[in-house]
Amino acid sequence: LVYSRLKADLLEDPAFSFTEESRQWIDRMLDYNVPGGKLNRGISVVNSYKILKGGQLNDDEFFLASVLGWCVEWLQAYFLVLDDIMDNSHTRRGQPCWFRLPKVGLIAANDGILLRNHIPRILYRYFREKTYYVHLLDLFNEVEFQTASGQMLDLITTHKGEEDLSKYKLPVYNRIVQYKTAFYSFYLPVACALLMAGENLDNYIDVKNILVDMGTYFQVQDDYLDCFGDPQVIGKIGTDIEDFKCSWLVVQALERANEQQLKVLSENYGNPDPSCVTAIKTIYTDLNLQAVFSKYEQESYEQLISAIEGQQSKPVQELLKSFLHKIYRRHK
Amino acid sequence: LVYSRLKADLLEDPAFSFTEESRQWIDRMLDYNVPGGKLNRGISVVNSYKILKGGQLNDDEFFLASVLGWCVEWLQAYFLVLDDIMDNSHTRRGQPCWFRLPKVGLIAANDGILLRNHIPRILYRYFREKTYYVHLLDLFNEVEFQTASGQMLDLITTHKGEEDLSKYKLPVYNRIVQYKTAFYSFYLPVACALLMAGENLDNYIDVKNILVDMGTYFQVQDDYLDCFGDPQVIGKIGTDIEDFKCSWLVVQALERANEQQLKVLSENYGNPDPSCVTAIKTIYTDLNLQAVFSKYEQESYEQLISAIEGQQSKPVQELLKSFLHKIYRRHK
Ligand SMILES: [Mg+2]
Ligand SMILES: [Mg+2]
Ligand SMILES: [Mg+2]
Ligand SMILES: [Mg+2]
Ligand SMILES: [Mg+2]
Ligand SMILES: [Mg+2]
Repeated sequence: LVYSRLKADLLEDPAFSFTEESRQWIDRMLDYNVPGGKLNRGISVVNSYKILKGGQLNDDEFFLASVLGWCVEWLQAYFLVLDDIMDNSHTRRGQPCWFRLPKVGLIAANDGILLRNHIPRILYRYFREKTYYVHLLDLFNEVEFQTASGQMLDLITTHKGEEDLSKYKLPVYNRIVQYKTAFYSFYLPVACALLMAGENLDNYIDVKNILVDMGTYFQVQDDYLDCFGDPQVIGKIGTDIEDFKCSWLVVQALERANEQQLKVLSENYGNPDPSCVTAIKTIYTDLNLQAVFSKYEQESYEQLISAIEGQQSKPVQELLKSFLHKIYRRHK
Repeated sequence: LVYSRLKADLLEDPAFSFTEESRQWIDRMLDYNVPGGKLNRGISVVNSYKILKGGQLNDDEFFLASVLGWCVEWLQAYFLVLDDIMDNSHTRRGQPCWFRLPKVGLIAANDGILLRNHIPRILYRYFREKTYYVHLLDLFNEVEFQTASGQMLDLITTHKGEEDLSKYKLPVYNRIVQYKTAFYSFYLPVACALLMAGENLDNYIDVKNILVDMGTYFQVQDDYLDCFGDPQVIGKIGTDIEDFKCSWLVVQALERANEQQLKVLSENYGNPDPSCVTAIKTIYTDLNLQAVFSKYEQESYEQLISAIEGQQSKPVQELLKSFLHKIYRRHK
């Protein structure tokens, strides 16, 4: 419902004089790309704000928090549309990638740009009178910059045609994940809620660091489940090995492999042939990466809990724990 | 010099932890894409601010106006990098398009995004304490939205594989040009200067309209010179006919052609074969489009002058006239 209202606003934006054809294009493009995800990031804004407020939200507060939640979803849609073009991907959320549709093609690049441009249009409409308006703009700008920078790191590290496993080391992995995923997926929704609650983000550097660490932990899980998760449960068949991804698993394997195993890794990683994929998975199992992951998961959890309990504010503790418990030991 | 300082700032931005490799990438990407144009848009900010201030600028004023000028150039670089990908172009400013470089490819899409993200980084660094800071953010956001919307119109109107001259009519042409080019090339530099001079942009709607009309006139000239200009003078060989562009010339030709000529237009427009290009140019000449253009140029000039002289403020009149006289009857 909030989504429909935001879409209707955008289709009547007075800053552009729509033709019928262009209005239909945007309508279809939004429906194809913006809803349809799990909406975790968007819902997080509302939940976080509820906790910070210490109770129920009135209609207006709920609406505004939902609007910010949708802005995070719009940001995500923008990143995904462009990422799929750059990765030459085929499917997304169980349907063809937007740029794969015959009528779309590289127009999708501009559609990604438009999705990004919709965010300040929405913020301007609903928040321009708020004292925290300028901080919202700064926040979205900073987080987008970090995400695009993480994407650059990812692209130049895992560059097609120059496959080179020697670059896949843990500090590189951590840096890519923090910038490319953690800031916008974990920090941004909470930061939106903090701004709505009247807080100054400069006082929440620790909270930012905790959320970025949680986002890293989340991505490690994602990489683990890509190989060892149940496709029935996670809803897709992982292809990180075939895609030569800088996955946490291959980073761990490279750290632990003997010379013989290193040879197998470098000869088979990134090859879509099923026998190559099996060779890689065999090494993962031989190196006992399932146990390495369990240990990592346990230690991350304990470190996060102790960092959270070091926070002064009880609502902030509650908020961070609710995030952590949503993802701890997840299977999908 | 200002450019070098801004680049150095961006390469040390504390919001991202650069690796040597990623710092070098950005360094090279900026040098390749940001300077090297004519810098008309950037210089316009400084000149406009000088006129509005009624005299010389002190060092600080000059520096800040130059920074905003460079922000407009950064915006332009962002649009061009992405436009060349979407148009599958080969050259830009006399060198291969950025995405054509073997090491770059579709990473260029993310580089375009990064160029766009650099603008709020620069604004935050140099303007965040200014009372007009939030209005600068709103301005860049609105103008970027209009440009991306104009680009969408252009893309869906001139869609490859669905070549259809019947769509090329003057209102369509005007709408594309206004949104895709005029707002960011003509209105944005002046609006930046107005904000620096402490003005409220809501009081300058007429100035905006005049500048958008001037931008339209500028694009008509560009289209005319693409066919009838001297390649030695304009520095490139036009390819609008080969590229099936929605050019002012083809719009005028379609309005004036008889049935026989319409047939030739639809059979030859967009075909890179030199004999097809010649057939189109012959029709343009037969329809006397040179004279049609001269008349348009004269009338546009007179309308713009009378609109400018209707403005209350003398400095604003001077500013708008300086713009107009820079482009009136230009040959390049
Ligand atoms: Mg991808
Ligand atoms: Mg990717
Ligand atoms: Mg994954
Ligand atoms: Mg182009
Ligand atoms: Mg184009
Ligand atoms: Mg041209």
